[in-house]
Amino acid sequence: MILQLAIDLMNLNEAKALLAEIKDKIDIVELGTPLMLREGMRAVREVKSMFPELCVLSDIKIMDGGEIEAGMAFEAGADIVTVLGVAHDSTILGVVAAAKKHANTAVMVDMIAVNDLTARAREVDAMGVDYICVHTAFDLQGMGASPVADLLALQACIQNARPCAAGGITLDTVREVLVAGPEIIVVGGGIIGTADRVATAREFRRLIDTEEGI
Amino acid sequence: MILQLAIDLMNLNEAKALLAEIKDKIDIVELGTPLMLREGMRAVREVKSMFPELCVLSDIKIMDGGEIEAGMAFEAGADIVTVLGVAHDSTILGVVAAAKKHANTAVMVDMIAVNDLTARAREVDAMGVDYICVHTAFDLQGMGASPVADLLALQACIQNARPCAAGGITLDTVREVLVAGPEIIVVGGGIIGTADRVATAREFRRLIDTEEGI
Repeated sequence: MILQLAIDLMNLNEAKALLAEIKDKIDIVELGTPLMLREGMRAVREVKSMFPELCVLSDIKIMDGGEIEAGMAFEAGADIVTVLGVAHDSTILGVVAAAKKHANTAVMVDMIAVNDLTARAREVDAMGVDYICVHTAFDLQGMGASPVADLLALQACIQNARPCAAGGITLDTVREVLVAGPEIIVVGGGIIGTADRVATAREFRRLIDTEEGI
Repeated sequence: MILQLAIDLMNLNEAKALLAEIKDKIDIVELGTPLMLREGMRAVREVKSMFPELCVLSDIKIMDGGEIEAGMAFEAGADIVTVLGVAHDSTILGVVAAAKKHANTAVMVDMIAVNDLTARAREVDAMGVDYICVHTAFDLQGMGASPVADLLALQACIQNARPCAAGGITLDTVREVLVAGPEIIVVGGGIIGTADRVATAREFRRLIDTEEGI
């Protein structure tokens, strides 16, 4: 199981300082949408150059211009880019085409705000994407929503892509996510919002590696 | 009627050079999604600072974190930000809340890939957004799609927001869009992809100001 740290509400220098401390506890660093919007592709270039051993995910939530926007992120050094599950099929297929043109890259579909999760998951699963991520929106997290039920539904209906879960996961809730067995667990505020980020990341790592609770 | 020029596939210096030539032909400069992803909020800051007389739209197609991401763009100097119609209501409402906190700003909802256009348009129209934009995806434009039918459907069902149209509009197709009477016409490749961009923009301006064909 893979731990992805999402960095959203920092500037690039703060993100680099955090990564220097925490890089050996995580597998993937996600340059979150607000960070990407603030800094642009410079964020990908600088983080990949400084931490070449980390897998870098550029969370640009592509909605159109799939091949162009994904190509831009891959050329900047991203290993994984995100495309929205609500985008047109042609957009998702464009992102897949861009990934095929760049060695060792991958595509994650973010299922945020998809109405019929299982129907759409079956469709995007057939498009050659690598990861499908159930994602409880930040803007819904105050309402008690959690990605676990969606993750179980996703697990039951996809055959090719690997399932991932994101959205409000903390040390208090990670065990139920682990039980559902995603390939990637995405944690943002659940690490960054804690007093000792390195210790929290270490504890996430321990739970994931021992699959405690499973 | 308002002419919005969408700048997508340029770097920031190219965009500034184009704007210096073309600024008196247009009302709104859209810093398109690929440009925003490439350059980040620096694009908004520099363009607004260099062309304070232009209305600057930051096409960040917000999908989550509505209040945070919109606030970031408004603080950088954007006059208008875009949020996706497929986003959760709470996200769109967060963008509206951010606009209320920043004087003289506005919210445009991009209806790209919304399944039930009129039902969703009625919903977002009640959320206090300023503009609702029908948008034929770039990734569908090769398939002969056009925003005109969607614009007519939109016109018939909204009461508060002003209707806009985007997606593949050229001098060859603008007259049928004009007939449908949007508040804003968004043109990207229809100007930027032509040999004489200034002359093309001038002709768009003339057609829009005289409402030729209506």
